[in-house]
Amino acid sequence: MLFRQLFDRETSTYTYLLADEASGAALLIDPVLDQVDRDLGLLEDLGLSLTYILETHVHADHVTGAAILRDRTGARTVVSATAGADCADVAVRDGDVIRLGASGIEVRQTPGHTAGCVTYVTQDQKFAFTGDALMIRGCGRTDFQEGDAHTLYASVHEKIFTLPDACAVYPGHDYKGRTQSTVGEEKRLNPRLGGDKTVEEFAVIMDGLGLAPPKHLAVSLPANRNCGRILPESTAP
Amino acid sequence: MLFRQLFDRETSTYTYLLADEASGAALLIDPVLDQVDRDLGLLEDLGLSLTYILETHVHADHVTGAAILRDRTGARTVVSATAGADCADVAVRDGDVIRLGASGIEVRQTPGHTAGCVTYVTQDQKFAFTGDALMIRGCGRTDFQEGDAHTLYASVHEKIFTLPDACAVYPGHDYKGRTQSTVGEEKRLNPRLGGDKTVEEFAVIMDGLGLAPPKHLAVSLPANRNCGRILPESTAP
Repeated sequence: MLFRQLFDRETSTYTYLLADEASGAALLIDPVLDQVDRDLGLLEDLGLSLTYILETHVHADHVTGAAILRDRTGARTVVSATAGADCADVAVRDGDVIRLGASGIEVRQTPGHTAGCVTYVTQDQKFAFTGDALMIRGCGRTDFQEGDAHTLYASVHEKIFTLPDACAVYPGHDYKGRTQSTVGEEKRLNPRLGGDKTVEEFAVIMDGLGLAPPKHLAVSLPANRNCGRILPESTAP
Repeated sequence: MLFRQLFDRETSTYTYLLADEASGAALLIDPVLDQVDRDLGLLEDLGLSLTYILETHVHADHVTGAAILRDRTGARTVVSATAGADCADVAVRDGDVIRLGASGIEVRQTPGHTAGCVTYVTQDQKFAFTGDALMIRGCGRTDFQEGDAHTLYASVHEKIFTLPDACAVYPGHDYKGRTQSTVGEEKRLNPRLGGDKTVEEFAVIMDGLGLAPPKHLAVSLPANRNCGRILPESTAP
């Protein structure tokens, strides 16, 4: 399977390209609106055909490129059934498998950062795309968008930490220039969720973060609930 | 072999960690001074011992972390014999192999961006760390630091494009958030050096770039010729 990691420097967001080289079928995970031309150029360079656009969740910090990519390629958009994004072509649930040529991507529901977060896992369990559920030595905040620390702790422990230790963790963001981790590494080293941290200790950490709202929240949330279409204020869902 | 790609957002510089997991021996390629604490933290997290610090060249746009990493770990610094950095512990030449546990990294001299540029290639020829000789759909400038377009063209064609098409290309920088390419992709798609571009056409492209000097040139060049030690102006070599 062809794999590429892409970065949006402005929002420190990672986008992932996965493709089945035999058939040329490709998918993008968490594309960014501002990077649509780059991503389409890469697909063209590599002779790939975009079949799916996967969101790990409804993002609060950047606008997804999903709608524009869908318009330009005919690819189908994929979002969790619990994300509140009725615009998506495919609403996925825990255990669903997205086919990509001879391979498949398993959907694992991992709510807690938002109610509609999912982790996408390649069927060989070598790659997990964890969005903001599990990040490198960190995790997404739990103080808005139906976030809940107890729920996130359970998601990470039951749905991600049960993967093989060698499984690569590719997050939705990193703000220190790290590009990947592994399940084993995060189980051992994640200062919020790893080691012997209890759910109560995790909840105390998350309650104490005192973070400011994301800079682009007011634009990003309504646009992403609409699959990336920025609507005039009066018609935004 | 353990592999990690790391990014410095300020200068869009990539640093690479390679390690032999059996022995715990690690090397860093092109570490950045501002990221030394991050890189040492990762080595510690992974239980690795830094044995070598490799430079692809004397950088003009950021200060290397080599000297500080050497001070803190005892690792040996590795620079091309033709780079004009006499401070290095190991001065390498074309064909030299740097041992890393059971593996080895081959040195290929690829001058043209600077006179002392090298590309590091894993002995299985699956990874090439090309520095600024070959970048994703681009290459380093050739208008200072003994840069020469004819020399760079020969380096890329003779020393990099002769690697297997599937060999991953990991460059010293990317300014569009792309993290890797392959030899086959660059042979086919690099707009300056790939396809049927002649050396004369390449020289015309490079002559016409009209780039401003790098922002940190005045600090970076003397510091990097001194392996990353920033000296008072009067004593800088």
